[in-house]
Amino acid sequence: MITFYSERQLEHCGVTEVLSGEVVSSFECPERVDQVLNRLRERSLGDILAPESFSLDTACRVHTPDYVEFLQTVWPRWHQMYPDTTQAIPYCFAVRGLAPRCPDHVEGQLGYYSLDMTASIVPGTWNAIKAAMDCALAGQQHIAGGARSVFSLCRPPGHHATADQMGGYCYLNNAAIAAQAYLDSGCKKIAILDVDYHHGNGTQSIFYDRDDVLFLSLHADPAQDYPHYWGYADETGVGPGEGFNLNLPLPINRTDWSLYRQALDKALAAIQSYGAEVVIVSLGLDTFEQDPISFFKLKSDNYLELGQLIAGLNLPTQFVFEGGYATGALGLNTVNVLEGFSGR
Amino acid sequence: MITFYSERQLEHCGVTEVLSGEVVSSFECPERVDQVLNRLRERSLGDILAPESFSLDTACRVHTPDYVEFLQTVWPRWHQMYPDTTQAIPYCFAVRGLAPRCPDHVEGQLGYYSLDMTASIVPGTWNAIKAAMDCALAGQQHIAGGARSVFSLCRPPGHHATADQMGGYCYLNNAAIAAQAYLDSGCKKIAILDVDYHHGNGTQSIFYDRDDVLFLSLHADPAQDYPHYWGYADETGVGPGEGFNLNLPLPINRTDWSLYRQALDKALAAIQSYGAEVVIVSLGLDTFEQDPISFFKLKSDNYLELGQLIAGLNLPTQFVFEGGYATGALGLNTVNVLEGFSGR
Ligand SMILES: [Zn+2]
Ligand SMILES: [Zn+2]
Repeated sequence: MITFYSERQLEHCGVTEVLSGEVVSSFECPERVDQVLNRLRERSLGDILAPESFSLDTACRVHTPDYVEFLQTVWPRWHQMYPDTTQAIPYCFAVRGLAPRCPDHVEGQLGYYSLDMTASIVPGTWNAIKAAMDCALAGQQHIAGGARSVFSLCRPPGHHATADQMGGYCYLNNAAIAAQAYLDSGCKKIAILDVDYHHGNGTQSIFYDRDDVLFLSLHADPAQDYPHYWGYADETGVGPGEGFNLNLPLPINRTDWSLYRQALDKALAAIQSYGAEVVIVSLGLDTFEQDPISFFKLKSDNYLELGQLIAGLNLPTQFVFEGGYATGALGLNTVNVLEGFSGR
Repeated sequence: MITFYSERQLEHCGVTEVLSGEVVSSFECPERVDQVLNRLRERSLGDILAPESFSLDTACRVHTPDYVEFLQTVWPRWHQMYPDTTQAIPYCFAVRGLAPRCPDHVEGQLGYYSLDMTASIVPGTWNAIKAAMDCALAGQQHIAGGARSVFSLCRPPGHHATADQMGGYCYLNNAAIAAQAYLDSGCKKIAILDVDYHHGNGTQSIFYDRDDVLFLSLHADPAQDYPHYWGYADETGVGPGEGFNLNLPLPINRTDWSLYRQALDKALAAIQSYGAEVVIVSLGLDTFEQDPISFFKLKSDNYLELGQLIAGLNLPTQFVFEGGYATGALGLNTVNVLEGFSGR
């Protein structure tokens, strides 16, 4: 299986987040991809290629053009206003209630386009965002060219990013952009299977009123964990999208492979009856028992079986990297999914 | 003029906020009221009385009961989950987009009930919130009993708090609760004149669809300053409230007394033609030229004239303390308004 990866994704670094009232180093760090690359090479899974540079046209079909423009320009604007700070972090947000307006002020815009405090901006952030998107689109082209599978090693991740909001370490929604690219090249039905520990609220919201993308997410019950406000089982889509959004929330602390697999079987059956032409897997590894911010109990061997079960769909499959913060085991667990899929 | 004040309001202390990616001491600090108390005594403006304790019934008529319950219980719940932290601060928010749900998890709820990062919770926060509300309701009773004016020295402030969101250092909306108490005791038309530097988005949202409270706010253009997403001139109310919300945004950096006074004249004329029976003044002093987080250019003498002009309405008037962070001049400026009103 070929992997698409760009070193420019490491330029998003030195990032912090706010946790329980303190500023701490972000769990979403460059070391994450190092671990995965090392394991890919160790196992000789396949070539690791740098993607070509794609235009932003497809990104602007799932994101609003003003948001994409904002992401490209926010750092220089912020730096001009606050030259002594090393990163841009919002402090106020366009929350539910009276319809919020987008202000002119860069710090106000930062909050307007944010879900939370976890998507800070440093000088290299846009280069990394763009390179991650390129990995997603290069993977899509590879599948469209006839490959059975591909791994887009995207960082920063994407599944929390909505049409015009960053958050949960995500900026552009790499999986959603890939899905749109399949549709734009002639596919009619795409499935996105999100196996990250956290609900893919961004992907859900982008396709919530559409029937050309079936979104399925297995994740921690949002009543108990991030993203908290979305991801409940009764969110099934709206309008033409009704019935094309399947949330399978699972209880924190007691979800092991046995419980997880029951939900996965439901999701895989739904993909088959939908008649998807391509499956995009939002591949988060934070379901692992040792993940520092998560509460499922999957073990490393379970990821081999996860890959096998996905392979059982017998569909062209694009793996798009999402979360996973137990850095030491992240390479093993990620590559286990890919090797399980490949039948190795 | 009598002042209502409780020492319990000082129990909300040691609070921090996030600013440009760093955790810093909150500008909204207990020293603020010390300065005002000193000046009140120095000028012998009138008695300073502790309020009696009021029930939460009126608060629950402008806030949702679940929010009031949350405010009362959040600290012990947070402390049980995170025993090693000294305050509760949210990191994710129920932002615009797909309808957000209120989760069970205390940290998720903290974000659900928040506008931003500036309303953190420490052990004494609820006591202070409740005491500030008591000051507002004691002031209301005093006016209802026949007084021409009163000063409710509320801290924490209130005008950013919506029916179920805290933010901008505000938790319960003291001015809105007082307004509701006047209505509940037989008044038909109340005006709330908000002269804080920042738009009173909480008060606006609480009364946005009602015609029994005319809300008028002079404030920094939200395109350029907090609260950024609300406070624009075309927000005029909705349904029965249409025409009963008057926003007068003013440009940052160049708003001096001359420009300010033109807007004030409009607001005072609107109060007169409305036929208000009582005026509540949301009295923020962050319009001062030396305020550390604001950009208007009012001078200390201007506050005397501000008080005189409000007195010209010839209506029973309750002053409710809001923002103002130039601590050294805060006593002088606040008491200047009250003395200008009293014709001293
Ligand atoms: Zn995750
Ligand atoms: Zn203010």
